Amino acid sequence: MNVKITGTGSYIPSIIEKNQDFYNHEFLNSDGSSINSANEVIIEKFKAITGIQERRYIKEELLNSDIAFFASQKAIEDAKVDKESIDYIIVAHNYGDVKHNTEQSDTVPSIASRVKHLLKVENPKCVGYDLLFGCPGWIEGVIQAKAFIASGLAKRCLVIGTETLSRVIDKHDRDSMIYSDGAAAVIVEESDEDGGIIGHDSATYALDEAHFIFFGETNKLDVVDQRRYIKMYGRKIYEFALTNVPKALKSCLDKSGISIKDVKKILIHQANEKMDEAIVKRFYKSYGMKMPEGIMPMTINMLGNSSVATVPTLYDMILKGQLKNQEINKGDVIIFASVGAGMNINAIVYKH
Amino acid sequence: MNVKITGTGSYIPSIIEKNQDFYNHEFLNSDGSSINSANEVIIEKFKAITGIQERRYIKEELLNSDIAFFASQKAIEDAKVDKESIDYIIVAHNYGDVKHNTEQSDTVPSIASRVKHLLKVENPKCVGYDLLFGCPGWIEGVIQAKAFIASGLAKRCLVIGTETLSRVIDKHDRDSMIYSDGAAAVIVEESDEDGGIIGHDSATYALDEAHFIFFGETNKLDVVDQRRYIKMYGRKIYEFALTNVPKALKSCLDKSGISIKDVKKILIHQANEKMDEAIVKRFYKSYGMKMPEGIMPMTINMLGNSSVATVPTLYDMILKGQLKNQEINKGDVIIFASVGAGMNINAIVYKH
Repeated sequence: MNVKITGTGSYIPSIIEKNQDFYNHEFLNSDGSSINSANEVIIEKFKAITGIQERRYIKEELLNSDIAFFASQKAIEDAKVDKESIDYIIVAHNYGDVKHNTEQSDTVPSIASRVKHLLKVENPKCVGYDLLFGCPGWIEGVIQAKAFIASGLAKRCLVIGTETLSRVIDKHDRDSMIYSDGAAAVIVEESDEDGGIIGHDSATYALDEAHFIFFGETNKLDVVDQRRYIKMYGRKIYEFALTNVPKALKSCLDKSGISIKDVKKILIHQANEKMDEAIVKRFYKSYGMKMPEGIMPMTINMLGNSSVATVPTLYDMILKGQLKNQEINKGDVIIFASVGAGMNINAIVYKH
Repeated sequence: MNVKITGTGSYIPSIIEKNQDFYNHEFLNSDGSSINSANEVIIEKFKAITGIQERRYIKEELLNSDIAFFASQKAIEDAKVDKESIDYIIVAHNYGDVKHNTEQSDTVPSIASRVKHLLKVENPKCVGYDLLFGCPGWIEGVIQAKAFIASGLAKRCLVIGTETLSRVIDKHDRDSMIYSDGAAAVIVEESDEDGGIIGHDSATYALDEAHFIFFGETNKLDVVDQRRYIKMYGRKIYEFALTNVPKALKSCLDKSGISIKDVKKILIHQANEKMDEAIVKRFYKSYGMKMPEGIMPMTINMLGNSSVATVPTLYDMILKGQLKNQEINKGDVIIFASVGAGMNINAIVYKH
């Protein structure tokens, strides 16, 4: 019995926030001191490192659960399955529903219940829950779906990655330019077809790394509210990821029995272009190889970092022919990989 | 191969909030109108329905993740296992860490990563994630642990239910007297011993029921902030639970092949004493039986409703001899059952 992704869908939010839209921001260091550079210089440097030119935000009236619903509708349609036949709705996110111009996360009911409600799925045996696992949440959701299928608990699961980071960013923090909104969903199911999930691996590094990505106050010191925002120690994350992600990918691939030469694509979490490139280069170096051209499709330049949504969005866009010079064909082996808050790392070796 | 709970631990918060501590509250109806009764009368009526005399709150300096850690330490010690041998840390909660006197939920990193950090577990292969499933979250975590064990992903899991509802209550809402804080944890593992999880069942009712428990504004209309609190439609929940939970329990028990006469205890989510009694009575009635005396141990009178923590706390207290006239002995069949936000219902038939 194989476990395959039989349908995909994504929702690209409609508001395009370009780098120049940040020209008037007052960026500050985390200690509140001013940055001795013009915003144009800060933003050029930001673009050189992250590759981000623009990112997407949802409209004011929308919520995280709404865009999860939009992506889910497309995935269900794409898989051509009856929504009432879904056994699990697994929603990976990290901040729940945060209404525009408010600061509270709303997670009761779960986003999964909200999506199920919006999809109008009646079957009570379709169980919906939310999974919090940092940016690697969607990949972890697929791994959990596989476990449920393997153990006989389910045959068909809807796995969603959805996040609206625009609702939790500190506009006085340069890192705010990284974050984006997005949602994507897949149907994962039991299949007699060849391929599917060949191997997977997950890890949580929490001894020293738990708080590398955290909830913290604004960099603007004279703001006296208690509001907190997504914050990260970028340098520490970069070093952590470069040390651990290539090793994790190698271990996962080697255990799967697949040769590195048979890997056609690596769909890696769109965290930061330079970091992603360094990870994949080091991964290939561990096999004594150079990173093949085009192996690592990227969307970060246009879509930013939408956390749990980046990997399934990338996958959906390639399959739908929306990414220039990128395709995945039947029988191709690909790797899904992610690293993020927790700090969590995971990967799936997948035969399309 | 069986899957058994081999250790339990709970944390009972130290602050006792008695019913008379609410005498000076200004309770209002949800439309903001005043309630035409003295607080003493409101509170007596509340006690008659819910059975709650007092509830527990954590100290100001503590967080949800702290009490999850305290309970986990006890469960690991009780199971006599090496913390480095744990494959999963699964944390059921609904509101994350909410600092005293603040309103934001903090869920990045996940509570599981925080607990792993506090436990000083080094092994990166110990994967920590959070599970949001309303009050039935802890039972669902045990079910997920079983699926991971059955599918070969894990041998040993730490499953925690932890919640600090005192941080999300509207003091102008009578329902605020229901909510409580608490944490409990268990070690679930592969075992050659007889017994363990015999059957289980889960359901999500979201078509009409998704928003029966929700995040809403204070009942005090002249407060103009946007802060939201845990809110519920008590009457709708009562009717929903009474219609669906007895049926769910019966279906789960019948599928497990166990006779109703062999059930020694029903450990039901401590939501509301009258509701819990009505559910269990109706469950027995569906077998043409009367509810046996002492079948349904209760802690709600002293501990209130601490969401995901009630069932594992109850279990731990009975096993540790902390609940008068209640015991569970080797070979006893018990049922864990819960209903809550989502609306979710689940149950496990378990042989101790």
